[in-house]
Amino acid sequence: MQFHLSGFAPGDPEILDPAARLPAPPASASVPGEVDVLIVGCGPAGLNLAAQLSAFPDIRTCIVEQKADRLLIGQADGIACRTMEMFHAHGFAERVAREACWINETTFWKPDESKPGNIARSGRVQDVEDGLSEFPHVVINQARVHDFFLDVMRNSAARMQPFYSRQLQDLRIDPAAGPGDHAVTVRLERIDDAHRGEVETVRARYVVGCDGARSVVRKAIGRELHGDSANHAWGVMDVLAVTDFPDIRYKSLIQSAHDGSIIVIPREGGYLVRLYVELTKLDVGERVAGRRIGPEDLIAKARRILNPHALEVKEIAWWSVYEIGQRLCDKFDDVGEAEVSTRLPSVFIAGDACHTHSPKAGQGMNVSMQDTFNLGWKLAAVLRKRCAPRLLHTYSAERQAIAKELIDFDREWASILASAKQEGADPVKTQDYFVRHGRYTAGTATRYRPSVLTGEAAHQHLAKGFAIGTRFHSAPVIRLSDAMPVHLGHTIKADGRFRIFAFAGGGDPAAPDSAIRALCDFLERGAASPVRRYTPEAADIDAVIDVRAVFQQSHRDLVIGAMPPLLLPRKGRYGLCDYEKMFCPDLKDGQDIFAKRGIDRAQGCMVVVRPDQYVAHVLPLDAYAELAAYFDGFMVQTN
Amino acid sequence: MQFHLSGFAPGDPEILDPAARLPAPPASASVPGEVDVLIVGCGPAGLNLAAQLSAFPDIRTCIVEQKADRLLIGQADGIACRTMEMFHAHGFAERVAREACWINETTFWKPDESKPGNIARSGRVQDVEDGLSEFPHVVINQARVHDFFLDVMRNSAARMQPFYSRQLQDLRIDPAAGPGDHAVTVRLERIDDAHRGEVETVRARYVVGCDGARSVVRKAIGRELHGDSANHAWGVMDVLAVTDFPDIRYKSLIQSAHDGSIIVIPREGGYLVRLYVELTKLDVGERVAGRRIGPEDLIAKARRILNPHALEVKEIAWWSVYEIGQRLCDKFDDVGEAEVSTRLPSVFIAGDACHTHSPKAGQGMNVSMQDTFNLGWKLAAVLRKRCAPRLLHTYSAERQAIAKELIDFDREWASILASAKQEGADPVKTQDYFVRHGRYTAGTATRYRPSVLTGEAAHQHLAKGFAIGTRFHSAPVIRLSDAMPVHLGHTIKADGRFRIFAFAGGGDPAAPDSAIRALCDFLERGAASPVRRYTPEAADIDAVIDVRAVFQQSHRDLVIGAMPPLLLPRKGRYGLCDYEKMFCPDLKDGQDIFAKRGIDRAQGCMVVVRPDQYVAHVLPLDAYAELAAYFDGFMVQTN
Repeated sequence: MQFHLSGFAPGDPEILDPAARLPAPPASASVPGEVDVLIVGCGPAGLNLAAQLSAFPDIRTCIVEQKADRLLIGQADGIACRTMEMFHAHGFAERVAREACWINETTFWKPDESKPGNIARSGRVQDVEDGLSEFPHVVINQARVHDFFLDVMRNSAARMQPFYSRQLQDLRIDPAAGPGDHAVTVRLERIDDAHRGEVETVRARYVVGCDGARSVVRKAIGRELHGDSANHAWGVMDVLAVTDFPDIRYKSLIQSAHDGSIIVIPREGGYLVRLYVELTKLDVGERVAGRRIGPEDLIAKARRILNPHALEVKEIAWWSVYEIGQRLCDKFDDVGEAEVSTRLPSVFIAGDACHTHSPKAGQGMNVSMQDTFNLGWKLAAVLRKRCAPRLLHTYSAERQAIAKELIDFDREWASILASAKQEGADPVKTQDYFVRHGRYTAGTATRYRPSVLTGEAAHQHLAKGFAIGTRFHSAPVIRLSDAMPVHLGHTIKADGRFRIFAFAGGGDPAAPDSAIRALCDFLERGAASPVRRYTPEAADIDAVIDVRAVFQQSHRDLVIGAMPPLLLPRKGRYGLCDYEKMFCPDLKDGQDIFAKRGIDRAQGCMVVVRPDQYVAHVLPLDAYAELAAYFDGFMVQTN
Repeated sequence: MQFHLSGFAPGDPEILDPAARLPAPPASASVPGEVDVLIVGCGPAGLNLAAQLSAFPDIRTCIVEQKADRLLIGQADGIACRTMEMFHAHGFAERVAREACWINETTFWKPDESKPGNIARSGRVQDVEDGLSEFPHVVINQARVHDFFLDVMRNSAARMQPFYSRQLQDLRIDPAAGPGDHAVTVRLERIDDAHRGEVETVRARYVVGCDGARSVVRKAIGRELHGDSANHAWGVMDVLAVTDFPDIRYKSLIQSAHDGSIIVIPREGGYLVRLYVELTKLDVGERVAGRRIGPEDLIAKARRILNPHALEVKEIAWWSVYEIGQRLCDKFDDVGEAEVSTRLPSVFIAGDACHTHSPKAGQGMNVSMQDTFNLGWKLAAVLRKRCAPRLLHTYSAERQAIAKELIDFDREWASILASAKQEGADPVKTQDYFVRHGRYTAGTATRYRPSVLTGEAAHQHLAKGFAIGTRFHSAPVIRLSDAMPVHLGHTIKADGRFRIFAFAGGGDPAAPDSAIRALCDFLERGAASPVRRYTPEAADIDAVIDVRAVFQQSHRDLVIGAMPPLLLPRKGRYGLCDYEKMFCPDLKDGQDIFAKRGIDRAQGCMVVVRPDQYVAHVLPLDAYAELAAYFDGFMVQTN
């Protein structure tokens, strides 16, 4: 798609009249007095959480935002492959893939050896290694990501919309409250002209602070960001420009001899480009605003760095100069380390509220969204009484560790770039580091440690390519019922359900003694079956744990009616058959999913996947007791 | 996507609340008194034309419909690959691919030889041969196709909406009118309660009758459908059902021994299925309504045919019993064969208004949309004074021939199915015919004959895979500027532009003597250049003819700045560079586009493509005179 040719216009580019792209903000109703979840902040973390919770109309969620309306321009833009996988679970990955700019290759520029005042290309790499994800690395205005989440919320059964122009005044947790009480009381001040000064009080079971680096929620629970004593200053601008720099449509990391470095990020629509200009390290407590840096300074610096290439900026769609440090909270909820065994969390923080970092690794928005994708299903499961409230401790435990890894990675990356700017630095080293860390920047390196939610790797050898604790790495399969080529991972929607993927061993899965049949029989009827134990009577059989099977035979060689009934479940008010539970090998590119993911063809295995797409466990097909024990560790019996 | 589990609900399935899916019909304003184009009928043909014309805000288009609001249920559902290619030009192929049911394989059932009262599977075939199109064959409710067109119209610069509850009273052509006059006067009666009886008069330059098999527009211009003297009766129903028929999610052609045949069409959402039940041949003039056939009759018949499989219908989302014959108009406009050289057409008919046929070939909706995709750009080009009005004669000439082919094909297919029902018929023959005609049913067999718009095949050997007169068969390429993997054919949008794809021969395309450079120089500066001659002064250089190039070298081996300036054009108010004109081989699946499409690697060639995606000409890269002569044949000089 090409757009922005005649000037940047915010909103949905498929609506040709820019004026028609801007729906009025939602009517300024009062926030409800009592909710299950109050989300503070309409950034990517907050909106992702709201979108996730909007899937559950039985949960009362309220999201508030200080600004008067949705975001239209600026801020982050990088979408890692892993984030696209999550977008697919929300249903809008295709829209993003279509509208965004794909980062296919990244190029590296350094001072020209023969003429150090000029830059010269020192290398280019494929941005994402083959097979790492079925989705690309893309860039798109953060505002559009917000729009997609807002669409999910609007289209949901809950028909959720944000409450704008609300400033958090204070937050109080009732120390005497029991589990499930509306323990948190929040006061919000309305700051739009029509209601200025009015104060609304909301009582919530849970409050999630997605309110950015200067989070009021964080302060209210007494947490602090720790880390760098001083900030780095950055300039960033989205421009429409004419240049003879040949890699203007590639992500380019450019180090000049004497004028510092810039990062070129080509942007959606074919014309827009973002330039990140590294400015300087500030003194402790200094704000970059004091330096009075304007867009003309950023352009001038970019021009010097790009020499001998010209850069003629025709329009600045957005620019900013800001400071940021590498900082992290010790814990992402309101329960101190010492109290974990005695208290339950009721306030959480996510995104920039608990970790900040430079834009260089392109990770900020992505990690923030993954925070709330981790938290959302847990909140829903506890509120819907499917999981015990102690599950909520795992949010901080899992995400704080990941954020710490990110900060460490980010710091290392920054120092590599910094040292690379020195005379005699080795640009090859920069590039090598970039390649080595491709999986990290793609967001696929996240690995949760063993816990109540993440099994030990005793049976990892049965499916080497589904590393326990990492995200389920999808692969193509053919659906048995209709020969449809699909990605197995795309069956995982943001619907709060666990999945058990049963990969069949050798032999006929329909045979009376097949391990798949025995597993299905256990799941359907066994006294210890987690499906039986945790699925409410009136619900569909796959409402809590969704069981799917992958066979080794071609779809033409299997008879659907001969398969275990659990794999052709009757659902809904009519008891219709769900034909989408069984899959067969897709051999179009030579290797089937068993080969691609190192699955033991003789024994097969079960891969248990969490609602946030992470592999919870790998088990033998007959490990019923271990499977039951896993779910018994955190789920609540309903029947 | 799965939906309709708990009952069929019309509208966008991504909006979870069915009530929220139904926007109010557009406000009932009066139709304008004078328009460029009046479209009668909001079926697929009419809406496709409206969507196409909505791309041109300088054209005043009005579309009217007898019904009170948009379609919500029923009617056609098959979308051929070729139609998906056209949907891509409109920008919504991805939405359809996501929501629709894909037809991956088709199965064939016949009487069981050992027990003829039962049916048995006699074969299965891949539905679309590999490489025939980059898009699948899908099925989706016709109503959703309408919705996608309505979205295009609403999002267009013209912000077009239909005028509902209008019945065409009469249509009069002023015989004294000159070219470009508002020669057609139409009277519309409003039939909604609020305005019943009010008559509106519209004067139009062109009127297009997309008003179905009983077209009033057709009658007004004195045309008739000729063909079968008697109609066939069909029953059709969209149902939610439980069955043990194993191929219920495959398109299945089922012939029973004694009870006739049905066609099973699995539908979007994973649960819905359509059954076509062939009833009987009616007497001349007989209407099927007289036979009082109800849904229970259709279900009973389907059950008998499916024996020994059970069919338990839980909900009938839509059903219909209707009669249809194989009929065709001699000509698709208001100009008699004898008057073609002396009169210009001002009234056209499209879709069922000029050709009808049985549903068996699954072609009706597809061919109807292709009718108006052929007509739309021509009307726009004439109204915008880019082409001479005589171009409009080519609509009837091209589309009537195609419709005739369709009717012939359809009749042959019907007789094959009919004879297959006889005892001793050969189901293998049915299946063979099906396979052989796959390209026909995919919509890719259409081939326009040589004419002012379609060149002679003198140079076809330079690009054997781009047969002149057939639709441009896309193939993957890599964009030079950003290493983006794209489909070359996806650069063709429904924007009324011609394309010249220049495939480079051997050697460096950047060399001063390269054939590509010489061609670009000619197109940019040559006195006879169609780009120079037919592009208005103030317009972008690619506004009328869009020139793109495909090289044989890898994108890493070419220097973008060394290429001919025409391939990096400066556009828009800022003179920004358009980086999307140059492409390189994509070798991911082994063969590049030169190999796939049989392009002469030594000489290269030009492939000229019409706005409706059909190959107009294949020429040597230096055939400037022939290229100029082609465009001079129908275009109007503006400068």
